[in-house]
Amino acid sequence: MKKGNTLFFKTRPRVRSFAAVCGSKEREGVIGGYADVTLTDDMYGESTYEKAECKMLSNAISLAVEKGRLTDSDIDVMFSGDLLNQIISASFAARDFQFPFLGLYSACSTMSEGMLLAAALCDGGFAENCVAATGSHFASAERQYRYPLELGCTRPPQSQWTVTGAGACVISQDTGDIAITNATLGRVRDWGVTDVNNMGAAMAPAAADTLIRHFNDTNTDPSDYDIIITGDLGALGSRILKDLMWEKSLDISAKHVDCGEIIYKVIEDEFQGGSGAGCSAVVMNSYIFTKMSAGLYKKVLFAATGALLSTVSSGQGESIPCISHAVEFETVPSDC
Amino acid sequence: MKKGNTLFFKTRPRVRSFAAVCGSKEREGVIGGYADVTLTDDMYGESTYEKAECKMLSNAISLAVEKGRLTDSDIDVMFSGDLLNQIISASFAARDFQFPFLGLYSACSTMSEGMLLAAALCDGGFAENCVAATGSHFASAERQYRYPLELGCTRPPQSQWTVTGAGACVISQDTGDIAITNATLGRVRDWGVTDVNNMGAAMAPAAADTLIRHFNDTNTDPSDYDIIITGDLGALGSRILKDLMWEKSLDISAKHVDCGEIIYKVIEDEFQGGSGAGCSAVVMNSYIFTKMSAGLYKKVLFAATGALLSTVSSGQGESIPCISHAVEFETVPSDC
Repeated sequence: MKKGNTLFFKTRPRVRSFAAVCGSKEREGVIGGYADVTLTDDMYGESTYEKAECKMLSNAISLAVEKGRLTDSDIDVMFSGDLLNQIISASFAARDFQFPFLGLYSACSTMSEGMLLAAALCDGGFAENCVAATGSHFASAERQYRYPLELGCTRPPQSQWTVTGAGACVISQDTGDIAITNATLGRVRDWGVTDVNNMGAAMAPAAADTLIRHFNDTNTDPSDYDIIITGDLGALGSRILKDLMWEKSLDISAKHVDCGEIIYKVIEDEFQGGSGAGCSAVVMNSYIFTKMSAGLYKKVLFAATGALLSTVSSGQGESIPCISHAVEFETVPSDC
Repeated sequence: MKKGNTLFFKTRPRVRSFAAVCGSKEREGVIGGYADVTLTDDMYGESTYEKAECKMLSNAISLAVEKGRLTDSDIDVMFSGDLLNQIISASFAARDFQFPFLGLYSACSTMSEGMLLAAALCDGGFAENCVAATGSHFASAERQYRYPLELGCTRPPQSQWTVTGAGACVISQDTGDIAITNATLGRVRDWGVTDVNNMGAAMAPAAADTLIRHFNDTNTDPSDYDIIITGDLGALGSRILKDLMWEKSLDISAKHVDCGEIIYKVIEDEFQGGSGAGCSAVVMNSYIFTKMSAGLYKKVLFAATGALLSTVSSGQGESIPCISHAVEFETVPSDC
């Protein structure tokens, strides 16, 4: 069923299991105690950053499947994507498994796009268990989007730090204590921001657009949620989002948390906080879902945000089109 | 409903409308008389190849929506992706429209992945009208994946020619004379091919894997179809596919056609034929659907094929993981 741009899941598919792998910098922060695997060396025993990124993603998927007491043959399809050109982390991770694979690209909003589609396939009766997964790696993202690390370039103060980490969850038809009740589809918004170091400012209008449509379609307001969590707007982007929402008479300030803002313990080089597809993937699939399972959050709205630029589009003078897909979670008694 | 890796659509969503834009080389071939827009200049009035690619895609989408006698507000969501890094053609095309956007990456199998997900959302009651679209441009693909055209590099005989073109269709709950009956999800197959100029050989095992599972899940065999159409295996890849199927006692030779094999009139520089996401997108959304609407084909199996490599993965010595998603179409009397 749908209303406006929101899909309502009548069978309320469940988050059956979740897993996260995070890097050495990330383990020092809030998710350090929640992630399943925390690396001491971000190369993860591989010869290249890209292979390390793929290994993190593959391991997060394996762990999520295992924690759900499932095997590969129980998984109907995996939704995954990442930031690398031609989503090679996801495609090569999918090579490690025997189940079908549907590749996504939605930049840093891949986690919520995957969850949304997985829930739709489960609710529509097309799948019993789907995997939704994504990840990113600071070093592979830097050299693809910006400069090789070896150059030692100075980062501007409005920039964010791509998270080294991967998260995966299994969305199932009926097992688990976290239900997915509905999801709001994102639209591409572009307010003309051209500064590729200021993703937060570029993505905030997309997040606001999705949240406003979500509240409208679901007849809710910010006070109905225990927490409203965005993907990786960072400190500056979050401030812009709160202002944009406030202008529409929706005050989210008491409920809003941004994964990028909370992921690092001490903000030094990270300036505005974390970013990258792995940012919300790790925070959701460790910290948030653990807190939900423990009953600390009952109703959560998750809106991951993605900046759909490339080095080519920016080089050709284009501004940054952005998107945000939102997914709503609610805890249910575990015997339901 | 699902069986094996095949989703069965009980409401049989329809191809409501379709449109294709093709380049100057493509207009000389079989699709020249079927495409809605045929270019005389592949720059399409734009300043860069990438912008021309995006414009083709955007126009194909507009045309498909218009031909379905719909407006933007009738579209629930668009599924799209392309070959460029971070799928900028699709993301920037989505900026031209007000409807939601779900970004895909499945290389040259994007068309069937989009159709599959669009049909699932319609059948699941989540959408009334979805757009599935993709495209590619020879010049943008060459300079991203291989060499700048200005270098005038010699192409090896096993290579294919990336199609300049874009195709889009509107998948609807109930309007149209072509029904989508089921779709088989692809799995990543990698048989160790490392020659980036020999995509046909790399992708053939993925196509065979999907076709075999499709016949199995649907209790059909090649003789049940009027035509079995693959995406862009080219001449060499098609020969390999036929051999692989024959080894499994499935003789598809009488029914098989490859979009890459038929798209060009005279094979000169194209060697093994066409490739690229636009290849099957253009052939399906002009030639094939027109023939189906005219009653010349009644039951069609479409398996687009994608090579999920990147220049980075190949540079790091990786082989080429491939995938193929299949969608089955059947004509229905138009008053159904």
